[in-house]
Amino acid sequence: MLEVCADIIETVRLKKPLVHHLTNYVTVNDCANVTLAIGASPVMADAIEEAADMASIASALVLNIGTLNSRMVESMLAAGIAANAHGIPVVLDPVGAGATAYRNASAAKILDKLDVAVIRGNISEIRSVAGLASATKGVDASDADRNADARSLVRDLAKRLNCVVAATGKVDAVSDGTRTVLIENGADELERVSGTGCMCTSLVASCVGASPADPLAAAAAGILAMCLAGELALEGPGGQGLGAFHHALFDQIGHLNGATVRARGTIHETAG
Amino acid sequence: MLEVCADIIETVRLKKPLVHHLTNYVTVNDCANVTLAIGASPVMADAIEEAADMASIASALVLNIGTLNSRMVESMLAAGIAANAHGIPVVLDPVGAGATAYRNASAAKILDKLDVAVIRGNISEIRSVAGLASATKGVDASDADRNADARSLVRDLAKRLNCVVAATGKVDAVSDGTRTVLIENGADELERVSGTGCMCTSLVASCVGASPADPLAAAAAGILAMCLAGELALEGPGGQGLGAFHHALFDQIGHLNGATVRARGTIHETAG
Amino acid sequence: MLEVCADIIETVRLKKPLVHHLTNYVTVNDCANVTLAIGASPVMADAIEEAADMASIASALVLNIGTLNSRMVESMLAAGIAANAHGIPVVLDPVGAGATAYRNASAAKILDKLDVAVIRGNISEIRSVAGLASATKGVDASDADRNADARSLVRDLAKRLNCVVAATGKVDAVSDGTRTVLIENGADELERVSGTGCMCTSLVASCVGASPADPLAAAAAGILAMCLAGELALEGPGGQGLGAFHHALFDQIGHLNGATVRARGTIHETAG
Repeated sequence: MLEVCADIIETVRLKKPLVHHLTNYVTVNDCANVTLAIGASPVMADAIEEAADMASIASALVLNIGTLNSRMVESMLAAGIAANAHGIPVVLDPVGAGATAYRNASAAKILDKLDVAVIRGNISEIRSVAGLASATKGVDASDADRNADARSLVRDLAKRLNCVVAATGKVDAVSDGTRTVLIENGADELERVSGTGCMCTSLVASCVGASPADPLAAAAAGILAMCLAGELALEGPGGQGLGAFHHALFDQIGHLNGATVRARGTIHETAG
Repeated sequence: MLEVCADIIETVRLKKPLVHHLTNYVTVNDCANVTLAIGASPVMADAIEEAADMASIASALVLNIGTLNSRMVESMLAAGIAANAHGIPVVLDPVGAGATAYRNASAAKILDKLDVAVIRGNISEIRSVAGLASATKGVDASDADRNADARSLVRDLAKRLNCVVAATGKVDAVSDGTRTVLIENGADELERVSGTGCMCTSLVASCVGASPADPLAAAAAGILAMCLAGELALEGPGGQGLGAFHHALFDQIGHLNGATVRARGTIHETAG
Repeated sequence: MLEVCADIIETVRLKKPLVHHLTNYVTVNDCANVTLAIGASPVMADAIEEAADMASIASALVLNIGTLNSRMVESMLAAGIAANAHGIPVVLDPVGAGATAYRNASAAKILDKLDVAVIRGNISEIRSVAGLASATKGVDASDADRNADARSLVRDLAKRLNCVVAATGKVDAVSDGTRTVLIENGADELERVSGTGCMCTSLVASCVGASPADPLAAAAAGILAMCLAGELALEGPGGQGLGAFHHALFDQIGHLNGATVRARGTIHETAG
């Protein structure tokens, strides 16, 4: 799996997939920059007048519910229907699912109306999408939820929804319902910077856009890229503090190649 | 007062208060990151469908009018009413008050309908909220207004509105109408980076969320945090230029602790 | 022309023009910071209730269509009409023109209803505004379009629309239909950071706001500022990677003065 992930990282730079984002206004700039840094091309167009048109020419579509509103949900559905019609993979980030009834209902509506290729969230968000109790407040994972068994959670939800599901945290678990992988790279500091989850989703979409036939490996590749950037940023000038770490992430994603993935990636495939 | 401020900074890291923001899209990412850096947890949810729900589970609510529109005002009022009902402190940042009639009317409506715990703005904005002539153009304080007597301004407005009022600038003045403090820390470069006022408000809200019983000291602690971050950023790699300074602010807020506040804080309580 | 550009850069710091932005939420923070760094004062107010009021007190108005919607278009027209009525120059950035019918129609509507002083875009966007076929996908210039003759493109479009037109890329071409200049400064890395086009437009507007009588030279000065910042950022700490480069741009714009423009600027005026 590690070898396939390394190949996908290299494929993103060759193919430069266009990744259309309907996403929140909090972290959108970081999402655009991380998409450029990995070698893809970001675009954001949420108006109902053009969301579907833009999705139709993209290689992947991100639906990130971080700052929802009724117009955004409508545009997400229009863009998603267009993406589905053109066979373009849709990646859902259920930001803050569990925190309000509106987020839960919106995530459920998206999953009901659209074929989603990958769902990526923190453990609280994925538990909420799975209909399990979640102790989340706001958009950060709760400490109680962190102790949950991510491996069986993502496997069961992936099987049920027939898509790839990823729960990121100290260990990241990714499954398509049949195969499940655990990624042990990363840095605790990633949780102290806003938007690293959203950026991870943009990286997943960049990889899925470059390698749509293997969404499990593409999701793992995108998550691995974020984890390795975190590790490498800490070792370099990013070790000075949160601001330095934040911006070193873009340095590291910009430098990332297959060789680094092969040398540093720690990814295990588990049975079931 | 300095000792109390230092304790509050330490309390934020222990309590990790959830700080809900209805804020502008210009500086929102910096607000999220500064809230994380001080040890609180930021969330932004402005849809009318969830703004009140999110406010109800938060420890503090920021209302920042930097990029207003009619839907945002409606959501601000709904979130504020929920916060008031749950005893959750509301912090108002009247960005650009004085620049347009719409901003003035919106700030006035918020103050009329809601119990606000703290108002933080630059001297032009606070003068405008107080109904005084303001020479502001846009969102930066005007040079003429900078010469105004901030001390009596915040004291009189705090007394009139029965809340804490802070005017930040070269010297920052904070009052609850009975007690008034002046903070002499800071760095001129803070005015050359967009959003340092908004970030200051998020820090104030983080502190008020951690210490709601003492909003005067909490407001002072948040402002002091921003000022010290500016000083320390300049002394380190942030001295290289505006981009480096901007990002060193997050390094410094991330490192800030009670000991640094005690060692470097310059805060005076004045009579009246 | 180089000498005039250098003078305009110095004039911006003296006059501190207020630059009102109706712009996208992806890169808006960078636009605010670059406007501050060059010495101007940014403001963003897109509500229909205040967009025209804010435009009326500004020195320049940016209309950037990066994340359009119907309310934003309405506010852009209202702000633009107010700017035209007060003789305040309007700068249009047709972000993503060519990618969707909605963007094309919106850019056309703005040009039909308003007197625009300067249009700045990448070569794909300018070709699209000119009604030529464009191979753009999303918001980045297409490789095919990069080979087009930018010089005759901007000259002919400037003549037709009776305004200044700038197409930025490896070589930047700026024309008012009578005089055409080529700028050979810059750095390839500028295309690997999101928002450098938008930031360039904000710099152009800052310069046009400070020197409205000479929009050709002002546009050239703003573009030159961005190009030189890119070159200088690469030579300094910005050479470490995309994150470092991104933030070094603000360091360099903050330090930029007339002497640096005179020493490093490479700008040619061509016949016709």
